[in-house]
Amino acid sequence: MQKIFFTPGPTQLYPNVAKYVKEALKEEVCSISHRGNEFQQIFHNTIKSLRKVLRIPESYHVFFLSSATEAMERVIENLVAENSYHFVNGAFSERFFTIAQELGKSPMKCEAEWGKGFDFNEKIPDTEMICFTQNETSTGTAIDLEDIYNIKKDHDDKIIVADIVSSVPYVDIGYNKVDCAFFSVQKGFGLPAGLGVLIVNDKCIEKAQYLQDKNYDIGSYHSFPSLLKSADKNQTPETPNVLGIYLLGKVCDELDKIGIGNIRKETEKKAQIIYDFFDAHVSYKPFVQNKGIRSKTVITINVLNSAALIKKISDCSFVVGSGYKELKDRHVRIANFPMHKREDVEKMLRLI
Amino acid sequence: MQKIFFTPGPTQLYPNVAKYVKEALKEEVCSISHRGNEFQQIFHNTIKSLRKVLRIPESYHVFFLSSATEAMERVIENLVAENSYHFVNGAFSERFFTIAQELGKSPMKCEAEWGKGFDFNEKIPDTEMICFTQNETSTGTAIDLEDIYNIKKDHDDKIIVADIVSSVPYVDIGYNKVDCAFFSVQKGFGLPAGLGVLIVNDKCIEKAQYLQDKNYDIGSYHSFPSLLKSADKNQTPETPNVLGIYLLGKVCDELDKIGIGNIRKETEKKAQIIYDFFDAHVSYKPFVQNKGIRSKTVITINVLNSAALIKKISDCSFVVGSGYKELKDRHVRIANFPMHKREDVEKMLRLI
Repeated sequence: MQKIFFTPGPTQLYPNVAKYVKEALKEEVCSISHRGNEFQQIFHNTIKSLRKVLRIPESYHVFFLSSATEAMERVIENLVAENSYHFVNGAFSERFFTIAQELGKSPMKCEAEWGKGFDFNEKIPDTEMICFTQNETSTGTAIDLEDIYNIKKDHDDKIIVADIVSSVPYVDIGYNKVDCAFFSVQKGFGLPAGLGVLIVNDKCIEKAQYLQDKNYDIGSYHSFPSLLKSADKNQTPETPNVLGIYLLGKVCDELDKIGIGNIRKETEKKAQIIYDFFDAHVSYKPFVQNKGIRSKTVITINVLNSAALIKKISDCSFVVGSGYKELKDRHVRIANFPMHKREDVEKMLRLI
Repeated sequence: MQKIFFTPGPTQLYPNVAKYVKEALKEEVCSISHRGNEFQQIFHNTIKSLRKVLRIPESYHVFFLSSATEAMERVIENLVAENSYHFVNGAFSERFFTIAQELGKSPMKCEAEWGKGFDFNEKIPDTEMICFTQNETSTGTAIDLEDIYNIKKDHDDKIIVADIVSSVPYVDIGYNKVDCAFFSVQKGFGLPAGLGVLIVNDKCIEKAQYLQDKNYDIGSYHSFPSLLKSADKNQTPETPNVLGIYLLGKVCDELDKIGIGNIRKETEKKAQIIYDFFDAHVSYKPFVQNKGIRSKTVITINVLNSAALIKKISDCSFVVGSGYKELKDRHVRIANFPMHKREDVEKMLRLI
């Protein structure tokens, strides 16, 4: 029996992914040269469709990487000489911070308890870059976009980065209100893993170029100047995940047909159903208590024994995620992405 | 009409790739957690099958990256403090050298004309690492394995790296006679692009650890210690190209059934047919004149007008590669990988 994955990523594929893969194989997309016209057309189409769905301004550059983890590394390498500042309240925001340390920088952080929000009135120390994990996949907390925009206003000389890995395409972020954003495709885009997307403005390109000129190590083939040089030719510096780029374009076309506004409304509706259910549940309660910072796309529930609950649901072919690492046994995490149908959400909740 | 790609990569897929992709989708391989048992089993199976086909010693570690270009970057980052030494006679050996420069190292090189071999009797200056592009994809020259082994014998204190991107699985390299080797899967393994494989011994791990301890920047999630820590759990540090890892295992199983010895013999037979044909041709001649260094897997031919020849063949659904970059118009490159059938090679040659 086919399962339905409500895991926070990798997750359920978009229903038509199998069809698109078949088309790609028929069109021999995996055999064409990554330096030829056919590939350039695929690259161009995907970026165009992605820009349309997410309303990415033309002045922003879109680059393909291999994962969001790679994006964290490249962002630090290309944008930071000495220090970045990180809002940390979970495993992925912590990881971004740690990557900066591993790359020999001296990052600083504003920490909040896991599942809790930040005091954005606290003074931000002098730094080159401010990093937000807009949707913390490990705990299901979200940062309000207005909080990000306000900080951007007060720190316009700094580079503002938003990790939107598990909130895109739901999150209605104004790309022109940040300098850089990134995500991977195996979450809200319901695609096979192995592709990351990085969106940067000219301020980021200039900073990378500045660091390179000052002999900082900004990496090689995936430095921003190298990525830009290739992207300007509708290419990538290396042989990329061509199939992944092709599939992303197809899914974006589909999302565009449905309408991103409709997708966002439906995501909110489903999130409300799930949170209402657990707020009223006798023993399972939402982990994030402050309703204002609850993620709409990754919903984390306190349970006594996650394995038992996961087993019970999985017998009916629904798969939900366990808690993240040390929280494995005490949480379940339910993804609420565009491919998750409302009737399946309701069916799953009835089982709990 | 379905084409047959004789391009040097991306190239013709293995005939059963479409079937394996279908199986993967049915088994929901793209939705499973990359931290769960099912993924660990896939990781384990692929590495086991790859070790078996390529005879990779158990003491060597196998890591998954996203491309061979990434492998070049990670190898330099993790194994070089100051300088590496590169045998350069084409675009990819040059790229390896350039990546070392871009990462702030001071690499040195022994240069030969494109299409020509090296004088391996020349003294190698003091260096930490010696890099061989065993099969230069841009020109179709190959380095004799005995030349690599001899240099290894004389420089056993140094790290010996072999780029086997476009010769694997044909190349019968003794992995224990080098310290590190790498390749990507869209060439001889006939798979969709987006996966690189890196093979290293403990000497490499120790060197990376040493550099890290000395505060060199060896990268973050894809540093060798980080890759090893995950690989020991049959995992990758990031969410990887799960489908690619799954497919590589399936193709390795298939190669193992055919027998790597048979594959090698057949590759040599086909290479002989192709070289014999062009050696006897009135106007198209092999670019590499020295028969001892002609690649068996990427065969480069001097032509007057590559576009015309490529067009003529493509009308009958055969696709060959043009020359590399500046040599685009003057060369065609014909790949001879395990999925290329002898009868198709013969058909294609009859068209020329």
